[in-house]
Amino acid sequence: MSAASVSSSIVNANENSNNRTDDSDKNKMSSVKKKRDVNTNSGNDTIIKVKSVIPRRRQELLKWWGWGYKDSKFEVVDQAARFTGDRYLIGGKTLPHFAPWVVQNLNIDLSKLPKTTPLPTSYPDSRLPSNVREELEKIALVSVDGMDRLIRAHGQTLSDMAQLRSNSFPRIPDAVIWPECHEDVVKIVALATRHQFVIIPFGGGTSVSGSITCPAREPRPIVALDTSEMNSILWIDRDQLLARVQTGIVGQDLEREMRARGLTVGHEPDSYEFSTLGGWVATRASGMKKNTYGNIEDLIVQTKTVTPTGVLEKSCRVPRISCGPEWEHVVMGSEGCFGVVTEVTIKVRPLPPVTRYGSLVFPAWERGVAFEREVAEKRLQPSSIRLMDNDQFRFGLALKFESSWGGVILDGLKHLYITRIKGFDPAKLCVVTLLFEGEAEEVTEREKTINAIAAKYGGVPAGATNGERGYTFTFVIAYIRDLALDYSVVAESFETSVPWDRALALCAAVKRRVRAECERRGVRHYHISCRLTQTYDAGCCIYFYFGFNSSSFKDPVAMYEKIEEAARDEIIDCGGSISHHHGVGKLRKKWYKDTVSEPGRRLLLAAKQTLDPDNIFALGNMAFGEDQHEEAIVKSKL
Amino acid sequence: MSAASVSSSIVNANENSNNRTDDSDKNKMSSVKKKRDVNTNSGNDTIIKVKSVIPRRRQELLKWWGWGYKDSKFEVVDQAARFTGDRYLIGGKTLPHFAPWVVQNLNIDLSKLPKTTPLPTSYPDSRLPSNVREELEKIALVSVDGMDRLIRAHGQTLSDMAQLRSNSFPRIPDAVIWPECHEDVVKIVALATRHQFVIIPFGGGTSVSGSITCPAREPRPIVALDTSEMNSILWIDRDQLLARVQTGIVGQDLEREMRARGLTVGHEPDSYEFSTLGGWVATRASGMKKNTYGNIEDLIVQTKTVTPTGVLEKSCRVPRISCGPEWEHVVMGSEGCFGVVTEVTIKVRPLPPVTRYGSLVFPAWERGVAFEREVAEKRLQPSSIRLMDNDQFRFGLALKFESSWGGVILDGLKHLYITRIKGFDPAKLCVVTLLFEGEAEEVTEREKTINAIAAKYGGVPAGATNGERGYTFTFVIAYIRDLALDYSVVAESFETSVPWDRALALCAAVKRRVRAECERRGVRHYHISCRLTQTYDAGCCIYFYFGFNSSSFKDPVAMYEKIEEAARDEIIDCGGSISHHHGVGKLRKKWYKDTVSEPGRRLLLAAKQTLDPDNIFALGNMAFGEDQHEEAIVKSKL
Repeated sequence: MSAASVSSSIVNANENSNNRTDDSDKNKMSSVKKKRDVNTNSGNDTIIKVKSVIPRRRQELLKWWGWGYKDSKFEVVDQAARFTGDRYLIGGKTLPHFAPWVVQNLNIDLSKLPKTTPLPTSYPDSRLPSNVREELEKIALVSVDGMDRLIRAHGQTLSDMAQLRSNSFPRIPDAVIWPECHEDVVKIVALATRHQFVIIPFGGGTSVSGSITCPAREPRPIVALDTSEMNSILWIDRDQLLARVQTGIVGQDLEREMRARGLTVGHEPDSYEFSTLGGWVATRASGMKKNTYGNIEDLIVQTKTVTPTGVLEKSCRVPRISCGPEWEHVVMGSEGCFGVVTEVTIKVRPLPPVTRYGSLVFPAWERGVAFEREVAEKRLQPSSIRLMDNDQFRFGLALKFESSWGGVILDGLKHLYITRIKGFDPAKLCVVTLLFEGEAEEVTEREKTINAIAAKYGGVPAGATNGERGYTFTFVIAYIRDLALDYSVVAESFETSVPWDRALALCAAVKRRVRAECERRGVRHYHISCRLTQTYDAGCCIYFYFGFNSSSFKDPVAMYEKIEEAARDEIIDCGGSISHHHGVGKLRKKWYKDTVSEPGRRLLLAAKQTLDPDNIFALGNMAFGEDQHEEAIVKSKL
Repeated sequence: MSAASVSSSIVNANENSNNRTDDSDKNKMSSVKKKRDVNTNSGNDTIIKVKSVIPRRRQELLKWWGWGYKDSKFEVVDQAARFTGDRYLIGGKTLPHFAPWVVQNLNIDLSKLPKTTPLPTSYPDSRLPSNVREELEKIALVSVDGMDRLIRAHGQTLSDMAQLRSNSFPRIPDAVIWPECHEDVVKIVALATRHQFVIIPFGGGTSVSGSITCPAREPRPIVALDTSEMNSILWIDRDQLLARVQTGIVGQDLEREMRARGLTVGHEPDSYEFSTLGGWVATRASGMKKNTYGNIEDLIVQTKTVTPTGVLEKSCRVPRISCGPEWEHVVMGSEGCFGVVTEVTIKVRPLPPVTRYGSLVFPAWERGVAFEREVAEKRLQPSSIRLMDNDQFRFGLALKFESSWGGVILDGLKHLYITRIKGFDPAKLCVVTLLFEGEAEEVTEREKTINAIAAKYGGVPAGATNGERGYTFTFVIAYIRDLALDYSVVAESFETSVPWDRALALCAAVKRRVRAECERRGVRHYHISCRLTQTYDAGCCIYFYFGFNSSSFKDPVAMYEKIEEAARDEIIDCGGSISHHHGVGKLRKKWYKDTVSEPGRRLLLAAKQTLDPDNIFALGNMAFGEDQHEEAIVKSKL
């Protein structure tokens, strides 16, 4: 659909995209329609059927064995690193500084052949009974193909990747189903209750909490419910600046469609090329531009969730309500454990006339943090404002390509100016990247104000190009881990939120703890760095990158997890949180109860018992045990 | 405590204000302290013991029989209206336009003697067993005095006022208790479980949902837990712009203490002279200046709630978290049904250097709404921006005092200019009041932008004085109902939130419906008007004022409720909500389930069963029935 065809202010669609509508469906549709007449605009019935960048057979475009596009990866040829493909700024470029950096920091022997991941030759048999499969096939497309199932058995944790590379998942889904609409999901969930199989909703597969990993001991068949065919935009209301969207839509698809119409959702988590709207809701996602567009809880007006005991949905799409506890905030963060979020009404904004990048260099981390704090205190944050520490800055420099690429930040001249003339210590300086959006005048004004505040803390502007590179670097850095694993480096990022007064102490303590843990365990070559990615009135989000050369260790993943656990303990002791936006899943269950208190844990179990008493959505996240299903069965027999 | 004594940036207080601390308390305190060391700032231990404007014996300062201060009320002497006292701008002033307005609009015979409310001569006996009372007295001050109990039996609904005036509450609390701190509340709630009495938390008594009304058929003793002695500020952290506050603090006390320290919370619901922090949390309150300071959910960083099965509290005071469902959003809106919110960590802001009022006149309601919509769409709202319709504007003019008071808006000259020169129809024009806060330059800039947008819709600036009067008018208007009731006029306000595209239709439909209902029921003299009080990206809040001359009717309150019910049905049909910020309580139970859907209703019951399985907090709000306790007992006997 071209932009021209949506020139009317309302692009409305009440029609169901599912062409398998039977009579009972029609009745349901007409009642839905009646309700929607109240809750949405009337208008023409034109669904926007979005053609996703990512095909239904994801493995045709995406790596089955790692992150992102097949054609885009870091590789080492003759001990020189390069990035393949032409999708990203560094695509097709040689990275002369990369090899020296990894040798020095991680003691990698790049002359060794990388470990490649062999295509699996066998997969676990599907346990889905054929009669159930036949019933499912009446609702939507089903696959029991091994690779289709394998690539939906995991998210993107280190453990996921290690098991994927060794084809050693104890359990993978027994089938994949692709519903096309809310009504399909209702039928699938009803079938799951009848035949007692487990459903795991699968969106973009970018979870980093283990939330979609199949519980190993689940005795029932597991069906991965892939939301990717539920990716239509049901209506756009340009006057109300709202859109009703199916939740399987991928971030980049949603944004592309909106931009073609002069609009933007503006929600850009680091994963947004691949992650989905439904995934954002389920994990309580945060986007890089949250200062302008808000986090997911600020964007969502209404959600619709299919649970085994009914459809949870507020009846009106009002901007704010006082109607007792707000169940939307239970759906947001539900991590797939209560049901499937099928549709969402989300805010959109007009595309900003001006987008401008910026960057600033500070003499030291503490100064950078104090600058970020003042900007937040005055509520002057531009769309994005992020601060890298010195180690992360230097890691970024290692990705500098040939002469034209300034790494993350700082081309030669500026580097000279800052280090020689301003006297910044290259081993201490840190870097802020900025993204301004808005009217031209407003952007110019804001940039001036920000620069003035920066000056108070010794900050020096370092140019728009460096800012843009730093910002887009986010998308490329996710590709590095696959190369790391090829050379026995285990690596992952982890994040937290923390009150402002604890931020510096937390960063220092976590780094100290990671170093101490490494020392204690004989880890000699490692990288630990951090950045401050989001700021608020009362605190900020801190991201840590940690990786080490594990070639001499027997179980590198377990060792990594032990160190990360120690780091998280340290975070909690310092007043930080279990997670700012990655969620709990299975990886952070240890800290769930203490975070929400015992009554909070019991509220979670009560919500589960209410919405999903048979534990159809048996993901085992947060406070739910793998044995929950068995316990429930035992209890029901008493 | 003077402002000077808090010159250090951190005013911290870990000490318990309760001087009845025994050994087990000390242990508890030290563990609390340890935790708080992580979650708050260390600093000196100086609690700010706030001296409230409102004494413990509220009836000494406040009317027992109506709204607000005893010394402040509308009265009619020789058929001329005036407002008593000197607390408000119109205090001590004669209101020459008031009598003509009420005669014309409501056909009141002001020559009649007003109905006064006799002091009750008897009260229901207290059902609290003496042994329970003795145990309670070991924890905190207890009263079984009739008046102490009567004034805590109700909020401020029309029905509450009618029952109060006729001393006809079917049930009032059997005792009042005044805990001084969190630990006291823990003990009281434990005692309630042991002795099976009911607790109703009582804050400012300004609820307009019937939420604190005693369920008539409750067989157990009822204890009103008055939070007014829990009004200390435990610490203020000026660097973090946070404060830890006990929830019994009254809005005006909190604001006064903060202002004395150069800070502001900025939360100003219409009731903020009397309502409390805990009440704001329990009802999901919205303040007049939410555009700058946010609604209660934007202000709250952390809550602490004593429930019968434990203390619900997030372990960290981080600005944002992804840790599954957000239970803070279940506490906010809990309407007292799960427990007592005892402490809150709340954001504070530096006092703005400039506060400036403004006003605008528009030729018609539709133009005013379109203007408000554009301002909201561009996210340019000043701290407060509110639009009165023509009927409400003219009602405001009736409050004009002598020559010096412009009523709500428009002194003589401006009125002439607008009606004669600009040609606005006095029967159609409507008025916007504005409140700008911020740096001088920023305020001037914003005002210019707002005026430019107003001009597009035919809006004309009408001066700062009129704006200020309109804004403070809010506090005075609440006093009118008492006078109205004296003269047999039943009146109340009700509010809703609505998407922008439905706002005009909703207002028209509700007014049409109210008129039709009046006509059908033979109500000939009534007032129905509305204003738009809050704006958002996706919609706005609309307030209706409705009152009628009921002198010829047998059961005026029941008739009022029937008409209000019809109006609410109309609101819901038009896509409006059950409430923007007043909550559900008992008054709006009819629409609860349809609003939250059946799974939402069951989530509420499940949360109740988890946190308060014995129904200690038996308020019967939202989806809870009066018979719930009996049902639970029956169930437990099966």
